[in-house]
Amino acid sequence: MLATYRALCTHGYPNTSIAKIADEFEKSKSLLYYHYDDKEDLLEDFLSFLLERLEAELDEVDHENPRKHLLALIDRLLPSEMDDQAFQFRRAILEIRSQAPYHGAYREQFERSDTLFLSEFVSVIERGIEEGQFRAVNAEETAEFVYSAAYGALERGVTLEDPDIIEQNRAIIQEYVESQLVRYQ
Amino acid sequence: MLATYRALCTHGYPNTSIAKIADEFEKSKSLLYYHYDDKEDLLEDFLSFLLERLEAELDEVDHENPRKHLLALIDRLLPSEMDDQAFQFRRAILEIRSQAPYHGAYREQFERSDTLFLSEFVSVIERGIEEGQFRAVNAEETAEFVYSAAYGALERGVTLEDPDIIEQNRAIIQEYVESQLVRYQ
Repeated sequence: MLATYRALCTHGYPNTSIAKIADEFEKSKSLLYYHYDDKEDLLEDFLSFLLERLEAELDEVDHENPRKHLLALIDRLLPSEMDDQAFQFRRAILEIRSQAPYHGAYREQFERSDTLFLSEFVSVIERGIEEGQFRAVNAEETAEFVYSAAYGALERGVTLEDPDIIEQNRAIIQEYVESQLVRYQ
Repeated sequence: MLATYRALCTHGYPNTSIAKIADEFEKSKSLLYYHYDDKEDLLEDFLSFLLERLEAELDEVDHENPRKHLLALIDRLLPSEMDDQAFQFRRAILEIRSQAPYHGAYREQFERSDTLFLSEFVSVIERGIEEGQFRAVNAEETAEFVYSAAYGALERGVTLEDPDIIEQNRAIIQEYVESQLVRYQ
């Protein structure tokens, strides 16, 4: 998985091949060729690995306070002070995502990660409403809106390599949550 | 330009080459090789052509009523009833955008189209406020928010080939404009 990640970061998606991934692999190269037919096959496993890691990460987010939980999800999508590595990683993910229409296996993994994020957003918004911390908004629609805004900011900021877009949009989305969702007595 | 578009739609970005574009070209193939060194060089012209077309299109939008103008911009980003061709076109654009970090010329074109959309949003929001049709929101922040939400919905819907994501998010963004921006007496 690390070799795949390194190859993607170094060469970009179009120029990554199973041979380039093998070059980054410290163990037996033949093992890699034995296990995987082509790069698509390998990247499918890579995306599935990332999804499992994402699930574990989202489980670890503090679920105590709905407002803090919601802001933490936004931070997870649009981290503050993204370094080069954080940019490289997201660049690779967006490159693979752009190829989802050609590879059903990629599409399936991105569908699963979108669903995971959206269901987290919906459940924290519903909980905030139940506990009286949030206004009685439509949880599904609010989740869609916040997720799309964060994803769009990520796409724009990462492809233009501009951390200011990420910072500015995180602040705007946070402000939306504070002013439209949170009920301050 | 049409040959480039056809090649991108048929083969996807990674498999498009200047030879594949030449295959779609009805005139002299050698002319194409004479003018362009590689596909990046040709795609730079392609993006620049699209940007000019976008500028002309945005000029043609009815500028009379700020609310209608703003909704028309959202429709331009997230068209209703996108057919296969509309999906294919946006798929190609998002594929090229994913490669912007590797090609300064692509990045420059996407920076320009983002700036064009954002300045259209800002100016229509400012005009709506001046004319008393919109509330006194921060025009720059609202423009960023709406543009990111629309771009994120486009990215999500196009890569998952799911028109429902586009439809649903357009309705949500329209609803945001109607409830948060427009001042109904």
